Amino acid sequence: MTEPLDLARLQRRLAEFAAARNWQPYHTPKNLAAALSVEASELVEIFQWLTPEESARVMADPAAAPRVTDEVADVLAYLLQFCEVLGIDPLAALDAKIARNERRFPVADADDGAEPGQHPES
Amino acid sequence: MTEPLDLARLQRRLAEFAAARNWQPYHTPKNLAAALSVEASELVEIFQWLTPEESARVMADPAAAPRVTDEVADVLAYLLQFCEVLGIDPLAALDAKIARNERRFPVADADDGAEPGQHPES
Amino acid sequence: MTEPLDLARLQRRLAEFAAARNWQPYHTPKNLAAALSVEASELVEIFQWLTPEESARVMADPAAAPRVTDEVADVLAYLLQFCEVLGIDPLAALDAKIARNERRFPVADADDGAEPGQHPES
Amino acid sequence: MTEPLDLARLQRRLAEFAAARNWQPYHTPKNLAAALSVEASELVEIFQWLTPEESARVMADPAAAPRVTDEVADVLAYLLQFCEVLGIDPLAALDAKIARNERRFPVADADDGAEPGQHPES
Repeated sequence: MTEPLDLARLQRRLAEFAAARNWQPYHTPKNLAAALSVEASELVEIFQWLTPEESARVMADPAAAPRVTDEVADVLAYLLQFCEVLGIDPLAALDAKIARNERRFPVADADDGAEPGQHPES
Repeated sequence: MTEPLDLARLQRRLAEFAAARNWQPYHTPKNLAAALSVEASELVEIFQWLTPEESARVMADPAAAPRVTDEVADVLAYLLQFCEVLGIDPLAALDAKIARNERRFPVADADDGAEPGQHPES
Repeated sequence: MTEPLDLARLQRRLAEFAAARNWQPYHTPKNLAAALSVEASELVEIFQWLTPEESARVMADPAAAPRVTDEVADVLAYLLQFCEVLGIDPLAALDAKIARNERRFPVADADDGAEPGQHPES
Repeated sequence: MTEPLDLARLQRRLAEFAAARNWQPYHTPKNLAAALSVEASELVEIFQWLTPEESARVMADPAAAPRVTDEVADVLAYLLQFCEVLGIDPLAALDAKIARNERRFPVADADDGAEPGQHPES
């Protein structure tokens, strides 16, 4: 009850939640990937007409802030359910990806000044 | 080094990774939300022509499985970076959302048979 | 007034609509591309929990059918506005693309039976 | 051959293209909606790290311009195929939507100055 929140426990609660409602037939990997992308787009929708500067202040907007938090929860919920049905460990996947990216994008010489390099992941 | 993986540590590594490459100017909430949705769509792309049954077996396909894991990592990476720049705790957000959904979607009477109810989140 | 509908006329009406409301500052290519993807996801949302068979019957559902038509309109509206601000001719773009795809994906020998080949655009 | 390009003809060519390759079994409305959203996200990807100003100049970038045109073609192709399988007329849908929006968002008093109003479709 007072355990710290962790991803594995939340994932278990989501699985129990779906099972109790007989939703597993809907939760194919294909459908969960679609649902994840729909929720990610609902997050984009909050920002779509904002300037970069306005977007940085979004949590100061009492109408937008809870929507943002809510969409973050929805994205994470579908990501965890997707990983659950396919047996993927999302933390191990990210750990491996960061290690790979550290090799792919070595840090440039520190003397090259303050100008941001072009974001290479585009 | 041998600490268990946890979300907060991965989030810190992502922040250091971006800072070391001077990528913060690109990492507005608006841009990170867009990047998150792009990665979610790359996950959808893997499944777009598959039947539900094929989608359930995707991890048995040696060409598709590492792509799936990789896109999971990318989605989680952008979600954590988005949360980092806005000061959102994704685990607390999800915990609150599950609690809310437990009230919104009470478990139906167990006697109503095996047929799955319509998924109400559509 | 009784002219046939055509893409160019609808594009002009959309441009006048936005201009009359002073929305052009919002209509950067970046924002319009995001809005287009948000509308495409709203279309996906209608289908996310449907089986392939249910999805084929969606226009027979009096609740879903007008939503589908509405989202088609939204996707097309943002696509046309995106093309307008960047001076892209969407029909010429598609014509060139179809010609290119006809060369990339030659029709297989007609004798190879009824089984559908793997969709190569995945 | 020298007819002007029009949507209906391009739609017919797309249908013939898919039929000649036996792709119709893949072209459920659900799959085509997913493919449409994937292509829309590929358009977003081109813009994801650009500033609003850079996004306005994207067609002057010889590397980005053909990618933009190509993604426009892909979005339109899937939109037309989606409409084809469901019997939706995209031009009529957009015409009706514009008429509806003209009622929903009346033009504000012209004297209210140059400042753009908040985009109401957000």
